[in-house]
Order: sequence, then structure tokens, then C-alpha cells
Amino acid sequence: MTRRTGRRPGNPDTRESILDAARAAFAERGFDAAPIRGIAAAAGVDPALVHHYFGSKDQLFLAAMNFPVDPGAVLPGVLAGDRDGVGERLVRTFVGIWDSPAGSAGVALLRSAVSNEWTARLLREFITTQVLRRVLDQLDVDPAELPLRGSLVATQLVGLAMIRYVVRMEPVASADPDTLVAAIGPTIQRYVTGELPT
Amino acid sequence: MTRRTGRRPGNPDTRESILDAARAAFAERGFDAAPIRGIAAAAGVDPALVHHYFGSKDQLFLAAMNFPVDPGAVLPGVLAGDRDGVGERLVRTFVGIWDSPAGSAGVALLRSAVSNEWTARLLREFITTQVLRRVLDQLDVDPAELPLRGSLVATQLVGLAMIRYVVRMEPVASADPDTLVAAIGPTIQRYVTGELPT
Repeated sequence: MTRRTGRRPGNPDTRESILDAARAAFAERGFDAAPIRGIAAAAGVDPALVHHYFGSKDQLFLAAMNFPVDPGAVLPGVLAGDRDGVGERLVRTFVGIWDSPAGSAGVALLRSAVSNEWTARLLREFITTQVLRRVLDQLDVDPAELPLRGSLVATQLVGLAMIRYVVRMEPVASADPDTLVAAIGPTIQRYVTGELPT
Repeated sequence: MTRRTGRRPGNPDTRESILDAARAAFAERGFDAAPIRGIAAAAGVDPALVHHYFGSKDQLFLAAMNFPVDPGAVLPGVLAGDRDGVGERLVRTFVGIWDSPAGSAGVALLRSAVSNEWTARLLREFITTQVLRRVLDQLDVDPAELPLRGSLVATQLVGLAMIRYVVRMEPVASADPDTLVAAIGPTIQRYVTGELPT
């Protein structure tokens, strides 16, 4: 009898089984509520093998989303420095990643999220838990305001990605990063640290 | 011999032929450069028949996009009143339309634009010529700044539509319109009338 847990580490089928199970769990239950244990069980492997292949749950999520950039590695640069510059730094970092070869994965993700409710849920979880939570957690924001601030930031950044990389409307499509930082940075700054409607 | 121009007015095939030709022409040449004459020729009908079916070129574009709301009818309400309130009025009108049954056509359009380069071009032309040009033309904006202002407005409004209606991230997804107007109105106002990076 072949047990799935008996496959050797690095088996591509095993890796894919784990990623499929992770995508299903994160989309259905959300990132926080989906335990590694349950994902391993759904993939028919030992939880230790999930950790062996993917490291942390965050890393598993990045792999499941086929996401080329680790927000945990990028965001410290955004959060360093003065609080009043976080809007401009977030736009500069965002545009830098999307302008790089990694951006094509972002466009693919947007395309998929728009046509597929399941990917939309994954994208929502990803933005919330991997990006916005990290930014806002470290900025001394009232926790009660965090969801609204976070989803407002998402409206502006997802819209920037749509207009610059998908719809490609000029001049935003080919504007240099400095122009976008100057124009859109203050919007993000207001959503992160400005006064909000109650 | 059956001449296509011989079909009776109201023939659904003729209507569809004209709409197909219009979509192709608007996507390939742009709204301004695509003549009714050329669209009629491509559809094999007399230009008078295009006018008979659809009225103006603007109306033909609305029909070609299957767009349920005529910006030419809606925008006067946005443009009326004080210049400093145009951002809030634009957000309120935008959310009102997307929250109505007409919004499902908007979501379908976004989905199509993201997966299809051709629809993306049509959407770009639509936003530019049917929405932004009307708003900005009447607001005494420097014509040289109009494209950047217009595409910045598009980043925020398309992103709002994506997060509220497609990705459905909370609390933006179910926020009441007043909250969105208060939070996002100032962003639109700055993009329309505020200082821009040079």
C-alpha cells in the first residue's frame, strides 16, 4: 500500500497537494483560522512535512499565491523612517515591485481574482494578513480603525495597479515613479494616519 | 440579392453588426478617431441607419459597452454646485450607480477588461471620453494637466469598485455611502483641483 506521507521530501506531487490544500483552506476559512495541521491532513501528509517544505505559515501562503515578493522582507523598508513619509514610501515600494519582472505575477493574480471568487478571497486574505496588517500594526494605529484604513489603502493601490498595468491608461501607465509617489503618496498617508469618518 | 442595408430597421442582426463594428472601431482607433461612416461601412449598412438606431456617437458607445447609465445624463448633477464639493459628489454618484442594479453591468465590464485587452481599451476610451473629459472640461482645469488628473481619478474609482464589488474586502465592501464619500471624496477632490507634481 502506498501511503502519501511515504513520498520523499521534494516530490512535486506532494508539494502541489499541500499547496492545493493550503489554497482551499485559506480561501474557505481565512488565513488565521486555517491550521497547518488541517492543511496537512487534507493533503494527506504529516504537518512536519509542510514545515519542512515551506517553513512558516506565511511562507506557505506566499507559495500558495505564487507570490514572487515576500512582504515580510520588503515592508521593513517601508516602515523605517518617519511616520509622515509612510504613504510615499508605500507607493514607491509598490510601484517598484510591480514595475519589476515580479509585476507580471501581480497582474496574473489580479486577472484571476476578478474572474474567480476563490482567488478573490485569497487575494483579500493576502492583502489583509500579509501586507496591511504588517504596515498598520507597526504604526500605532487604533486597532478599531485598522480594517477601514487597510481597505481604503487597498482601494487606492489595487486601482493604481489596475490603471497602470492592466487597463494601461495614460499618463499613469508610463509615468515615472516619482510622479506617482508625489501624486498618490498623500492619499495613502491620509488613509493610514489621517482623520477618518466615524 | 440580399443587401444588408435592405434589412428592416430594428433587425437584431443589423443592430448587433453595428455594435460589433463599433466595438472594433472604438478599441482599434479610439472613440474620437473612429467615424460613424467607417463603422457603418464595416457593418454593411448606411450611416443614416446607425444614427436611426443609436442616435449620437456617444449613445452608440454606451450601447456598444452595454453600459446601463448615461454619464451625459448623470454628470450634470456632479458638476452642479461648488467646485470644492466635486470630489464628494463624484464619489456619491459613483457609489450610487454601482450600488444599484446597474452595478452588475459594471462588475461584468471590469471582469471583461481585466481578462481581455480589447475590452480594456474600450474601458479606457469610455472612462476618458465619456466620464473624465466631461467632468474636467467643465471645471476650468489646465488642459495640459487633464490627462494626469483624469487617470489619477480613475485609479481611485476603479480601485474602489474592485475592492467594494469584486474583491469585496470589508469594511469598504459594506460601508454606507456617507462613509465612503467622507473618506474618498477628498482624494478625488485633490486629484481634480489640487496641486499636482510637475
